[in-house]
This record gives sequence, structure tokens and C-alpha cells, in this order.
Amino acid sequence: MDELNIENKIIVTALSNQKRAVFRDHFLELHFYDQMQLFASFTQQQRQRIYRFLSPKELGDMFDEFAEDETMVISYLKEMTPQLAANVLSEMFTDNTVDILGQMEKSDLATYLNLMPKDEIPEVRKLLNYDDKTAGALMTTEYVSIDQNKTVSTAMQIIRHQASDAEIIYYLYVLDDAQNLIGVVTLRDLMISDKRTEIKTIMNPYVYSVQVDDDQEDVAQKVREYDFLAVPVVNQAGHMLGIITVDDIIDVIDEESAEDYSGLAGVNVDDTKESPWSAALHRLPWLVTLLVLGMSTASLINHFDGLVSQASILAVFISLITGTAGNAGTQSLAIAIRKISVENDRKIWRLISNEVLTGVLIGIVTAVVITIIVGVWKHNFILGGVIGISMMVAIVVANLAGSLIPILMDKIGVDPAVASGPFISTLSDLTSVMIYFSIAQLFLKYLI
Amino acid sequence: MDELNIENKIIVTALSNQKRAVFRDHFLELHFYDQMQLFASFTQQQRQRIYRFLSPKELGDMFDEFAEDETMVISYLKEMTPQLAANVLSEMFTDNTVDILGQMEKSDLATYLNLMPKDEIPEVRKLLNYDDKTAGALMTTEYVSIDQNKTVSTAMQIIRHQASDAEIIYYLYVLDDAQNLIGVVTLRDLMISDKRTEIKTIMNPYVYSVQVDDDQEDVAQKVREYDFLAVPVVNQAGHMLGIITVDDIIDVIDEESAEDYSGLAGVNVDDTKESPWSAALHRLPWLVTLLVLGMSTASLINHFDGLVSQASILAVFISLITGTAGNAGTQSLAIAIRKISVENDRKIWRLISNEVLTGVLIGIVTAVVITIIVGVWKHNFILGGVIGISMMVAIVVANLAGSLIPILMDKIGVDPAVASGPFISTLSDLTSVMIYFSIAQLFLKYLI
Repeated sequence: MDELNIENKIIVTALSNQKRAVFRDHFLELHFYDQMQLFASFTQQQRQRIYRFLSPKELGDMFDEFAEDETMVISYLKEMTPQLAANVLSEMFTDNTVDILGQMEKSDLATYLNLMPKDEIPEVRKLLNYDDKTAGALMTTEYVSIDQNKTVSTAMQIIRHQASDAEIIYYLYVLDDAQNLIGVVTLRDLMISDKRTEIKTIMNPYVYSVQVDDDQEDVAQKVREYDFLAVPVVNQAGHMLGIITVDDIIDVIDEESAEDYSGLAGVNVDDTKESPWSAALHRLPWLVTLLVLGMSTASLINHFDGLVSQASILAVFISLITGTAGNAGTQSLAIAIRKISVENDRKIWRLISNEVLTGVLIGIVTAVVITIIVGVWKHNFILGGVIGISMMVAIVVANLAGSLIPILMDKIGVDPAVASGPFISTLSDLTSVMIYFSIAQLFLKYLI
Repeated sequence: MDELNIENKIIVTALSNQKRAVFRDHFLELHFYDQMQLFASFTQQQRQRIYRFLSPKELGDMFDEFAEDETMVISYLKEMTPQLAANVLSEMFTDNTVDILGQMEKSDLATYLNLMPKDEIPEVRKLLNYDDKTAGALMTTEYVSIDQNKTVSTAMQIIRHQASDAEIIYYLYVLDDAQNLIGVVTLRDLMISDKRTEIKTIMNPYVYSVQVDDDQEDVAQKVREYDFLAVPVVNQAGHMLGIITVDDIIDVIDEESAEDYSGLAGVNVDDTKESPWSAALHRLPWLVTLLVLGMSTASLINHFDGLVSQASILAVFISLITGTAGNAGTQSLAIAIRKISVENDRKIWRLISNEVLTGVLIGIVTAVVITIIVGVWKHNFILGGVIGISMMVAIVVANLAGSLIPILMDKIGVDPAVASGPFISTLSDLTSVMIYFSIAQLFLKYLI
């Protein structure tokens, strides 16, 4: 947007010339995201000036946009006086405040927390205690609630009053005296109703909520199904604790899919600005570990050295068998990782049997194909059969490993995406070679 | 929700006893998603009854929830009289109507289109013409617009009037006489403003929009950055054409991430209810193709048969080198696929050089490690060096292939996710073996 570039120039000029009013006029007109982008490009001197030109609330609104980059926000907060930093933190949406405090050194956290407005401290402390990746860790407490006996016009007044503080005003949550969530009414419902109507007659009593310790993936699934703009979070007793808005759900979906993807590839795909040095440093530990695992395959082939010396033709098909089994195993792994996040137990065990069965069917077809190809090529159908059967069994074993291992890891509490593609294919190299040479040994006299 | 199960029982009973009023009372209280779930469980006889019990608009609201399963909706529509089906289609949100018509046989499409209300036909025709996976194909035309000279109270009236037809009423789009999009105002802004304020004083003139032929991934990226609940779609002249709501963006995000993931794995992970038979049928073509590609690796090893006969120790390290290079190449591929969807050209070519450089660094370290391991194990450091250098070069080549190939495919218009993980690792098997044996040939006399 050219208009944006022009605006940015005006803002930067006003800042340099210390024209507070001009700066505020133009800067505050920008969308918060654009404020954030511009702010991130400033020098420390320019930033110090902005901390004086903007109010804590205005700074807080902008920092809400930085929410995922907690390290960056923390460095900015440290440039301010502790009291100002605490004020800015308290003006941010509570879910973001909590994310940032959670990334700090404990001493800094304590400092800022104690300087925040007294009424906010208990809430923030509570949210800090929720496990990462649960509804409790995602939620914010800035929602609008109302009593069911109030009227539509009272509801409208409440919304007007809270419009600048609540994270979302389009859903109102109906609570009873004990803070139980008993219904929800949308702003749309309010707009089409007569002003004197009581909330209880227009509210939806079937209100979908999530539990505070629900996994974030389950929350995302509910939002996907019901197309919510926000979903309320309750505890086991049914008391309303907070809401999660759809933009945070999008972040969860991105995070979860990046994890699954990274797991399959065996590399963290989110460090987008890595230099080759740090990329190599990150990937090496895992690659070297797999290298050591690959050495056991090498020593296995070494163990069968006598066999290979007698029938050197066997060496020709090593990579064909390990490669094909590896491809099949990776497919099973990919499907298992996706299914684990959405399915329940009973279906998961069926997943394994399905994958093994699929492996058998694939194995039979590939075995026939390869037997024919090798038999014709080398004029030796027993050789072809050895390769074919080895490949079939190797594929079935690879499919079994690819589906079973992530499930077992999930059961013992390790993220199944850790059972990465490279690990499964390296493991299947080992099993494939073992199967291949064992079968070849049986038919050795036909292969020499 | 137990309440839901109880409600469902009441509804099913009312339906069986042909109690229209009771059925309508309870069924229409349900969230649209729950109506859809219940409806999907009915028999054809029950469904025929429902087509009589509900109005076209009520049926349309429910079918909006089926939107992704066009085949299912089409089968339901065929159970109705053509006129009823056309009425139901016209009551659905236009983006869903267009998705469903787009999946029909042309004769059916023409039939229903001609029976729809005359004023709707041009709009639907236009949306049908947009390319799949662009903003035009995603958008709907049910939005609320207003003239900038109107007042807040007029705006509120307009919203009340359109509240049940518009897909979203929380953003109002400000258009001039020529339909140009000149601003946006939120319902939140309206609520906190005085009733007599003119729209032009409170609207945001910096309104973010997407072009009608923008790729759906770019649209999703904008929504991610700005946390929009809906984004307007304009043509090159700036005329407003429609909006895309955040729930559809979530579907786009899911679709795009499933594609990337499927591409990396070489298997379509979205066919979640496949039987082993159809799973095998779907995976086989690709696996057999890779098998044939793998045969070229086999014949390459065969070509070097003399070498292997003289130094059978070489066979021991085949799978180690191909496996490690394959793992490294898959990592490069994974990163390339992700980056292609979000970065621009200049950065993409840097991606390749980064990946190659990372490969060199990784290659050097793994070469040193393997040289030492093999040298000590086999008391032959020249052998170790051969394995080490081969591995290093194989890794660099694999990283090059893993990053270059998807980029080339993207340039010629093929989805880079087709350059799947299995293809890259099978290709790198070939290059790894070629490198390995060529280097081994040079040092043969030290290896015997």
C-alpha cells in the first residue's frame, strides 16, 4: 500500500522532529499490526521517544500484536522503567500478558507482577499456572458477561461500556449468580430483538464450551466444526473462566500443523531466518544419532559379508529394498501422526491393523512386479522371488513400525512427531536388510 | 452433551410420529452443526419428511454446514423436486452454493440455476467462473455495505434489517456511488459512537482487501497477520465484489497444510476413512513408479559389480550413505515446501544456496565422524575417508535436489508438494550411489 509508505514517512519525520501531536495523530490511525511493523524498525533512541509519546494503553495495544515474539517484547519492556513496563503489561490482553511473563526470568516476572494494579495480579497469577498447550494457557479473561434477567437495552449499554477493553464484544456470555455459564447471546441476536426483551428469552442455552485443561488441539477442532469466533472456557463445575478467540485458534492450528510437519521431516521448519551455521548445528545432533543407528545396519551387512562375497548380485538390490520399504513406512507414519491428534483409542489400534494390511496388499503387488523385472533382467526367477518376498516382508514391517511407534510414543507421553520420518526410515533400513539377507541365505545355492 | 442426546431422541420421536410442530420446535433450537450431524444419520424416508417440515431457508441454513461435502449435498438435493432444490440452493450462502453447483454435472447445474430467483442467477454465474483456490472462488456476496454520508443510526437499522441474511454483520463496508471500497467500520465502532455521527468520520479509510485473483494462501496470510474476522475482496479497479470469512480461512489453512504434509509423505493424508484396499490402490501407482526409478539405482550398482566383487566391503556402507543423504535431502525438501508458499522470488534462490551451504557443513561433520568410525572399525582410514567424502558429497547433492526440485516445479506451475519426500529420497539414492562408487573406484587399490 503506497498510502502506508507515505504515512510511515510522515510518522518517522514527526518522530525525528519531536512533534508529539503530529506523531500521535498519524501513528494511532494505523492498524495495530502496521504500528507493530513500523515500531520494530526503529532504533532504541526512537523507541525511547515513543515510550514518552504514547500512553501505556496505546503501547499495550501495539504490543498485543507482538504477542508471539515474547523475547522481543521482553527486550522492549526492559528499556522502560519497571513501573511503565508493568503498566503496559497490564493494558495488554491477559492471555498475551501471561505468555510474556511466562518467558521471563523469575526475578523480572516478580518485579513486574508486583508493580501491576492490585486487582489484576490474582488473575494473571492464575493463568500463569496453566499447563502449556491447554485451553487455560490460551484463554483471556476480557470477555463480556451478563445476567439473564437483564434486558437487551441493558446488554447494549454494557457492551458500549466495555467495547474498548473486551477482546471480543460480539458474543455475550450469560452467567448466573454463581458464575456458572448458562447461555450465550450474540450481538446479532441483540440487534434484531426488541429493547425490552429479557436476555433469558433470546439466549442460546446450549452453549458450547471447553474445559480449562482440554488440549489445545481439541479446542481448535471445536472451533473448526462450529465456526465460532470465540469459545468459552469453563472448569469442571461449569464456572466461566475465560474465552479463546478465533485468531488465537489460527495460531494453534499453525503451531500444531508445523509440529506434525516438522516431525515427519525430522527438522524444525519454523526457524525461518536461520543461517546455514545454526541450521547445520540444529540438524546435526539428530543426523549423527541416525548415523550411529545406520552403522548397525552397516555392521549387519558386514555380518553377512560371506553371503555377499558368494553372491555379489545381492548387493545390487540393497538400496531398492531399503528404499521402497522406507517410502512405505514413511507413508504409514504420516497417516499415524495425523490420526493420533484427532482420533480416540479404539480407532487408533485399528489404524495399525489397517496399515499392516495395506502393507501386505502393497507388498504383494510390488513383490510380483519386482520378481518379474529381476527375473527377466537376470534370467533368474528364484533371485527375483527372493527380492520380491524380501521386499514384501520389509514393506509390511516398515508399515508396522511407521504406525506402531508413534502410537506407543503417544501412549508414554512423548510427542509422536518426535518419531520422525528419518528415524522410521533408518530403522526400516535395519529391518529390511535383516529380512533380505536372511531370506537370501535360505536360497543361496540358487543365487550364485 | 447429554442434553443433546435427549434432544435428539425427542426430535427423532416427533419425526416418526409426524408431529411437525414439535419437530420444528426442537430441531430449530439446535446449532446448525448439530442439525447437520443429526440429519446425516436419518434414512431417506425421514429426510423426505424433513423436506416437508422445514422451509427452504431452514434447509439452506443446515446445508451450509455440509458445505465441504458437496457430493453429499448433491445427493440430498436430488431427493427433492428440482424447484425445492433450487430454492434451498438460493437460500444458502453464495460461496457454498457455488461450491456445490461447481461439483455437479453440467445438465443438473443448468437445471437448478434456471429455477433460482432471477436476481440471484447473474451473481452465481459470476462466482462459478473464478479459478479454484483464489479469493474469487472463496468469497461470498452476503455482506453489509453503507454510504459514507449516512449516520450511525441508519447503519444500525441496515444491520438489523440484514442480520439474518448477511454472513457477517460485525464489519460494514463503506462503498461510494461507483461501488468502490473506501472504508470499513466495525459494529464495535458503531456501538461506541453517537447516533448522529456520520460514517465517514468514524470509518477506517485504510481498509485491507485482497484481489479477486489472489492465491488463497496469500489471503490466509493476511487474515493471520491482521486477525480479521472477514476480509473484503475487490477487483483491480477497487470495486467491492465480496468477502471471505475467517471460518473459510481456517478451512484454507487446513487444506494447504494437509497438501504440504501429504506432499512430504508422498501419500494423501486426507482420505481418513479409507479401507486397506483403496489405500493400497491409491499408494501403489506412486510406489511402483518409485520402484522403477529405484531399479536404475540397482542397475547402477550392477554396473559397478566388478568393483563390489573386488572390494565387498563397499556393499556394507551402501545403505548408510544413501540413508543419511536421504534424511538430509528430506529435511531440505521440507523447508523448501514451506518457504515456497510464503516467500518471494529473491529469497527463494537464497534458500537453495543456504541449503547447499548447510549441506556442506553437515557433510563435513558427518564425514569426519564416519571416517573415524570406519577407520577404527576396519583398520583402514583410506576406506574411512572414501566413505566420508562420498557421504559428504551425497549429502550436498541431496540438499541441492531437495531444495531445487520443488522450486523448479513451482516455477513451471506444478504444485511443489508433488515433489514428494519419497521421490527426493529415491532420486538421492541414485546420486549417492553414483558418487560413492565413482570415488571408491579412484581409491580401489587401497580398499581390497
